[in-house]
Amino acid sequence: MIRPGDPTLALALQPYLGGWPTNPDKGPADECGVFGIYGHPEAARVVYHALIALQHRGQESAGIVAADGANLNTHRGMGLVSDVFEKPETIQRLAGDIAIGHVRYSTTGSSRLGNAQPVVVNTRRGGLALAHNGNLVDAPAIRDRLEEQGAIFTTSIDTEVLAHLIVRSRAKSLEDAIVDAVSQVHGGYALLILAEDRLIGIRDPHGIRPLQLGRLDGSWVLASETCAFDTIGAEFVREVAPGEMVTISEGGKLRSRAAVREAVAPRPCIFEFIYFARPDSQFVGVNVHTVRKAMGRQLAKEAPADADIVIGVPDSSISAATGYAEESGIPYEVGLVKNRYIARTFILPSQAGRESALKLKLNPLRKVIEGRRVVLVDDSIVRGTTSRHLVSLLREAGAREVHLRIASPPYQNACHYGIDTSKSTDLIARGRTVREIADAIGADSLAYLSVEGMVKATGLSPEAGFCLACFTGDYPVPVPEEADKYALEGGCGCD
Amino acid sequence: MIRPGDPTLALALQPYLGGWPTNPDKGPADECGVFGIYGHPEAARVVYHALIALQHRGQESAGIVAADGANLNTHRGMGLVSDVFEKPETIQRLAGDIAIGHVRYSTTGSSRLGNAQPVVVNTRRGGLALAHNGNLVDAPAIRDRLEEQGAIFTTSIDTEVLAHLIVRSRAKSLEDAIVDAVSQVHGGYALLILAEDRLIGIRDPHGIRPLQLGRLDGSWVLASETCAFDTIGAEFVREVAPGEMVTISEGGKLRSRAAVREAVAPRPCIFEFIYFARPDSQFVGVNVHTVRKAMGRQLAKEAPADADIVIGVPDSSISAATGYAEESGIPYEVGLVKNRYIARTFILPSQAGRESALKLKLNPLRKVIEGRRVVLVDDSIVRGTTSRHLVSLLREAGAREVHLRIASPPYQNACHYGIDTSKSTDLIARGRTVREIADAIGADSLAYLSVEGMVKATGLSPEAGFCLACFTGDYPVPVPEEADKYALEGGCGCD
Amino acid sequence: MIRPGDPTLALALQPYLGGWPTNPDKGPADECGVFGIYGHPEAARVVYHALIALQHRGQESAGIVAADGANLNTHRGMGLVSDVFEKPETIQRLAGDIAIGHVRYSTTGSSRLGNAQPVVVNTRRGGLALAHNGNLVDAPAIRDRLEEQGAIFTTSIDTEVLAHLIVRSRAKSLEDAIVDAVSQVHGGYALLILAEDRLIGIRDPHGIRPLQLGRLDGSWVLASETCAFDTIGAEFVREVAPGEMVTISEGGKLRSRAAVREAVAPRPCIFEFIYFARPDSQFVGVNVHTVRKAMGRQLAKEAPADADIVIGVPDSSISAATGYAEESGIPYEVGLVKNRYIARTFILPSQAGRESALKLKLNPLRKVIEGRRVVLVDDSIVRGTTSRHLVSLLREAGAREVHLRIASPPYQNACHYGIDTSKSTDLIARGRTVREIADAIGADSLAYLSVEGMVKATGLSPEAGFCLACFTGDYPVPVPEEADKYALEGGCGCD
Amino acid sequence: MIRPGDPTLALALQPYLGGWPTNPDKGPADECGVFGIYGHPEAARVVYHALIALQHRGQESAGIVAADGANLNTHRGMGLVSDVFEKPETIQRLAGDIAIGHVRYSTTGSSRLGNAQPVVVNTRRGGLALAHNGNLVDAPAIRDRLEEQGAIFTTSIDTEVLAHLIVRSRAKSLEDAIVDAVSQVHGGYALLILAEDRLIGIRDPHGIRPLQLGRLDGSWVLASETCAFDTIGAEFVREVAPGEMVTISEGGKLRSRAAVREAVAPRPCIFEFIYFARPDSQFVGVNVHTVRKAMGRQLAKEAPADADIVIGVPDSSISAATGYAEESGIPYEVGLVKNRYIARTFILPSQAGRESALKLKLNPLRKVIEGRRVVLVDDSIVRGTTSRHLVSLLREAGAREVHLRIASPPYQNACHYGIDTSKSTDLIARGRTVREIADAIGADSLAYLSVEGMVKATGLSPEAGFCLACFTGDYPVPVPEEADKYALEGGCGCD
Repeated sequence: MIRPGDPTLALALQPYLGGWPTNPDKGPADECGVFGIYGHPEAARVVYHALIALQHRGQESAGIVAADGANLNTHRGMGLVSDVFEKPETIQRLAGDIAIGHVRYSTTGSSRLGNAQPVVVNTRRGGLALAHNGNLVDAPAIRDRLEEQGAIFTTSIDTEVLAHLIVRSRAKSLEDAIVDAVSQVHGGYALLILAEDRLIGIRDPHGIRPLQLGRLDGSWVLASETCAFDTIGAEFVREVAPGEMVTISEGGKLRSRAAVREAVAPRPCIFEFIYFARPDSQFVGVNVHTVRKAMGRQLAKEAPADADIVIGVPDSSISAATGYAEESGIPYEVGLVKNRYIARTFILPSQAGRESALKLKLNPLRKVIEGRRVVLVDDSIVRGTTSRHLVSLLREAGAREVHLRIASPPYQNACHYGIDTSKSTDLIARGRTVREIADAIGADSLAYLSVEGMVKATGLSPEAGFCLACFTGDYPVPVPEEADKYALEGGCGCD
Repeated sequence: MIRPGDPTLALALQPYLGGWPTNPDKGPADECGVFGIYGHPEAARVVYHALIALQHRGQESAGIVAADGANLNTHRGMGLVSDVFEKPETIQRLAGDIAIGHVRYSTTGSSRLGNAQPVVVNTRRGGLALAHNGNLVDAPAIRDRLEEQGAIFTTSIDTEVLAHLIVRSRAKSLEDAIVDAVSQVHGGYALLILAEDRLIGIRDPHGIRPLQLGRLDGSWVLASETCAFDTIGAEFVREVAPGEMVTISEGGKLRSRAAVREAVAPRPCIFEFIYFARPDSQFVGVNVHTVRKAMGRQLAKEAPADADIVIGVPDSSISAATGYAEESGIPYEVGLVKNRYIARTFILPSQAGRESALKLKLNPLRKVIEGRRVVLVDDSIVRGTTSRHLVSLLREAGAREVHLRIASPPYQNACHYGIDTSKSTDLIARGRTVREIADAIGADSLAYLSVEGMVKATGLSPEAGFCLACFTGDYPVPVPEEADKYALEGGCGCD
Repeated sequence: MIRPGDPTLALALQPYLGGWPTNPDKGPADECGVFGIYGHPEAARVVYHALIALQHRGQESAGIVAADGANLNTHRGMGLVSDVFEKPETIQRLAGDIAIGHVRYSTTGSSRLGNAQPVVVNTRRGGLALAHNGNLVDAPAIRDRLEEQGAIFTTSIDTEVLAHLIVRSRAKSLEDAIVDAVSQVHGGYALLILAEDRLIGIRDPHGIRPLQLGRLDGSWVLASETCAFDTIGAEFVREVAPGEMVTISEGGKLRSRAAVREAVAPRPCIFEFIYFARPDSQFVGVNVHTVRKAMGRQLAKEAPADADIVIGVPDSSISAATGYAEESGIPYEVGLVKNRYIARTFILPSQAGRESALKLKLNPLRKVIEGRRVVLVDDSIVRGTTSRHLVSLLREAGAREVHLRIASPPYQNACHYGIDTSKSTDLIARGRTVREIADAIGADSLAYLSVEGMVKATGLSPEAGFCLACFTGDYPVPVPEEADKYALEGGCGCD
Repeated sequence: MIRPGDPTLALALQPYLGGWPTNPDKGPADECGVFGIYGHPEAARVVYHALIALQHRGQESAGIVAADGANLNTHRGMGLVSDVFEKPETIQRLAGDIAIGHVRYSTTGSSRLGNAQPVVVNTRRGGLALAHNGNLVDAPAIRDRLEEQGAIFTTSIDTEVLAHLIVRSRAKSLEDAIVDAVSQVHGGYALLILAEDRLIGIRDPHGIRPLQLGRLDGSWVLASETCAFDTIGAEFVREVAPGEMVTISEGGKLRSRAAVREAVAPRPCIFEFIYFARPDSQFVGVNVHTVRKAMGRQLAKEAPADADIVIGVPDSSISAATGYAEESGIPYEVGLVKNRYIARTFILPSQAGRESALKLKLNPLRKVIEGRRVVLVDDSIVRGTTSRHLVSLLREAGAREVHLRIASPPYQNACHYGIDTSKSTDLIARGRTVREIADAIGADSLAYLSVEGMVKATGLSPEAGFCLACFTGDYPVPVPEEADKYALEGGCGCD
């Protein structure tokens, strides 16, 4: 899935926007990645390496905060981890043996430096740093209430709302205050909190957003994805449970408790399997690549195609495409070659308009495609613009037929728990039949994976329960009618 | 006066510190500059030019916020105005016809991006931006109280304390809330507040820190110094009075009221005349250069010297030196040549240690100095390190005698109203006789201007009243015993 | 094939080296890419887009020169195309309707700005710009001769030697002078020359280095690879023939002639198929991906393995790995996940040394590998260091057996025609049996593709002839005994 | 003297030009600075500090080359010394105990990176680096001849011509070859040549451009100005004589010989005294500030004015203004305050056009000027644009009368020996009477210093001889009719 509406425009404007390019590969559909470590003499260095492994979860800004007992040493900036930390000294200066880090794509709040995470605040509870993946559906309302009570906000991210709630709690211990705070909010989130002497990780009651626990020598580590553990040589211990709060303090003692007062059924986000997570990560105990391949296999069963070759959209759909190929017996082919150097590139619009950003990024392999009936496997369709371009690229390259197969069901409902798919009305599957979508996209045929087939492909029992809201509209956490990711922006744009 | 302790070290370390070099010429003794405009179609552009004129008041960070009716468009960064706004687009993007700007040297809070001003907050009163020159002596205590009440702080600057007080006020109008807020704080300050539809300027009850009012065509402008008006082609109207609050709104209507409930005697900072202000600015209705020259003349009367030439330390002491020369009849000479390109330069420490940072910056004119008895006029002595280096430079250049004349009295007490002279114990004049200082510095003779002579040189009646605390210890605003500029830093260092 | 000796070290040192990181994926084995266009109103813009498509051929420096009739407008710099041309204005300033561009990895000359191409010279023949892919084996000797005759050199790249020869020719026309010049040199090269009114492309007599001809609307285009044509929407016309010189002038007239006086047998570099070229390019009329896949199939026939899964090293070996899988019937799996964000990243060496650069870049998919017997397909082995790391990574991930299969024969001889494999003595296959290599690398088994099998996989008749020197030692162009890529460096290092 | 035509425009365009801002203070009238050292373990570090002292001689580009016995280690770039060498590592990497450096403003060749000096070439005489201040009047013609003979040029600076001539000489020793080369060229130059084992300094036969010899501990140093010696703690030894070549080799042995075969009368450039040199430098054995002051005195004698105050244009005219004041008895005043932070600033043109770049840079001190009759002393007038602006600024500030006094004669003839005053036709004094100039500029009166008075002020006997060509048209070196600084540019623009 290559998501944005019109990447050409976005890319062309990019150098004028000053800010960091949204990775056109990921588009506005990204979320965030968090990582924390307790008890390591080079804590910031480990976080740095881990954030590189989590970079696919957010390319807009990055930051690390380390606690050295006296101060919360902080560095944040716009861009990739390698841009924000382009000098080794920057990391070496972040002294401390507890640290957290964050890579961000905007879910709430617009793209500005002031919104880079972790959020760092001075409070009567001492200095606190918060790194947050997800979205709080009621943050705008709570924020209004807090403002009415005299709170002031310097960012437009909902993490700041949480900081206020924590500080306002009358609870004595920080942990109790955090429980107070998260009990007041709803949504999908994985949250790391760094205090001067402890590291705390919390996952929302439904476990919509992921959080993993691991061990690096004597240190505890927490990460959005297990691939970060592999990269730094840590061992995976277990998933933080939905609604669990883990605290690591006193030289490495880990305690666990419920983060919210009432328990609810787990509903992990199935979209982590479909698109977000790196294929080498484990989620809900299952490997992501394996699930993607199984989705491709299931798709082949549900929606076979009479075709000569199967090709996948790199990189996110390769696993599913190979699964489709194996199951169908139709040969898998490398039909689209991706340019690895496109990330920071602006596209100069031609007067003739011949060159498109998509062509610069993906080149169809004419020798492979020409005269063939092609099954094009993609992981999902959001707005449909890219799919239309892809189908058209394949036809120009001589494809006789293009059969689009999507390794997930029709994406019809906006996510409110941390995936930026903006308004439902932009979703091509919203209010359209599959036939109508196929026509809009120009494919000879189009088929989606069924909801049941998708869940089945995870290998988990249907009772396990997933958040399937984007496909089914069944939102585990009630969503305010007018929830809007910019609701937090108010009248103030911080830089 | 070239202030810092050991500039060589500072310069050598500078590239490793990552942050922006403190201008070695100004050292840690700078304060801040503010500028605001109401009702100009290119408000941010005017602020940008005005900040360049105020750059001498702070080189650490710069920022502009413009209100376009809907948003507070903000850009801030570390470094000079020309670094922070290195692309015209950056300014062009700051749409709006009301705008404020700030150049900063740390008075409170350490040197970090998160501490760059203006401070921008979202509140129940809408978006507010605050730009502040000065220091609130009770900010740490108020901050503790606010934190106890649940406030959180994202910076370590005292401007954020003011924002909290404004928002917490139960007053209905913003102006009343500001009065509530500033009535709770004490210190020396000039404050600009930008709301979505108005520009407000406040000066502390004693008028310690300066604030000037002007007019640019149909727009009102507020600035720390009148030189900013000259630069943008605005007319000077009048000084904002001590304790006055001016509000400009409703298309350009200016209203004035008392900002605090009780009136006190004006005590403008005399150090603006001695060192801070640009010579082309007016302060308390008097031109700065003219006062400096008069101080030099007065110094010549009080402390004549039997010498061949008078030289001044560029740039701040040139006015006083020419005054001394004229009064004494001893010829004024250019005896120290300043390298204009030193600002961003690091000094590579030599193994032999021959090159000093000072030599790179100031070269004595041997032909002028050799064999001569020299009167060296400087505006002030803070720690004495630079004076010692200067005297030694002149001797190496062949000066037969060096008579140091200081165009202000012995600087013996730390300022708590916006001048960063850190601890009193660092001040060389603290607890030392003039003879002892002369010995420490190595001058053949040393004399200071008297307090009376200094006040007389301003041409204002002694009753006019100045804040002379740094010289006399008579603090117009009571200072908490342990006031310390880092008191606000708490356990958290924001980047 | 991931080539360099010790990527960890290279990466760790990178930020200290100031220059641009060699892409660790490509290592020191890259060459260069060239592109030229005649007769396009936005010539530089087209070159820019084409260079992005050719970026895989060189990431060290990039440059574009455009001729506007009066001047050769030039911009060159270190880094990726997107770094060198990070502002649209830079390209817009390169006015002219003829232009050439270059992306470079050092084949001759060390990595310095002064060595960035195109080389631009002022001569009695007017301004000339040269962009060159390849290596001239006799450049050092000719350069010595030219220096003896009084020539001076400002770079250490052999393109400058060619410029001298062209200018020294007594021939009247530029074309004749070029023929004179290239007749004096030997090696493998594709050369673009931009004069004020024409564009000239030359390929070495054996056609070792590639050069393709295409058409974009009314303009002629020349490129190292056809993927550049696809990207800009140009049509492929034909390959420039070995030893051919094409001149485009007089408003678009293309003329062809022999570039050298004696014809020799074509010997295109087979390594373009194995590793250099993008899979979507055509070379010698054959698609690169198709050949790679056929090599994988042939490898499976020649060197079967008793295994559970086949995995390829991303990205260059994926085509061969899928071929191996299809032929062998062993399932193809995604077993190594590549981090796409590693390019500009430095690796902070840990005190404990746990994190390796390789792990940061490639993560084995434990769930896929664990307990399995793995066939690991790589395109080639140069020094063997990376292969050893890869095998060890797979074992740590639980592979039961690792059977390394290389889709090319043992690489035993240094290339002297444009591939930087430095000294033969560094090549692990040099003087070692396959068994010894397997032991050194730690694989359970190792097999290479045969030379015959490799040629067969191209689908071309063996008589077609390839340069196979790196495998067979049969050098089509005699190589001086002491040829060394730094021979040109002499006593002078240009920046 | 603030020289350029319209600084407002230049400043406004600056950010779009990409290159480095010409310092508006110096305008297009700058030349270059050179520095060399032999026999110092940290040679590059010393050169770096010396270049900072010489920065006023050129702000466009900077470079250092150090010889470590094996290589010429080079770093060059656009911008100030502090920009080009912004990291200490850059200098630390320039190993070697012989080194030369250069700061450049374009005299010949346009402003491009490829034109940054020192020029480094590989030749049969080994590696050579050349740093050059001045201009060769016959370089274009020689260059044409060399090109005819097959030479190629990669820059458009005339230093490259010299390199060719040196290499082409049949002389055996490098020194003899240099004599051969410089005997073929004419103009004003100071030239440093770094070979692998020696440092050579040459001054043109007339000694038009300056070159000074000094000693730093056991090392020899050569510099354009003596202020560089003061800065690094070196002792001034003597001026290199016109037409002299000094060679330092063999561990520090200095030899001297004639650089050209025929001796001519010395004609040092008097403009070094008027404007170029730093006031703390010695030239022809005389201190620059002292001469400037004497010029002011002489001017007061020749052209008295009935006025209230004397003010000088900072910084270059302050010395002369104080001299004028002392002689005339009219009080010297600081009437124009210069903004020290303007260098890198762009000026956003206002729609109303109110703010001028000049006002941003120089603010008239109204309190000093208002109602006064002002003598404005400037060092010279080139085009007159700035003088007109200055007079108008003073009038706006309330000056009752403005009497412009120029401390040099009318500048009527273009310089061809290293000062960039472009075409004679741009010079306001060309073909105009003093009255006409006064009218054009808007001054109440205007007077220039006489040629005789100027020479007398140097304290040297008139027979000593100066190059006065810009004032008298008497060119010591014949100038080709069409000499033009861009003659070297030909058809090629190097970046």
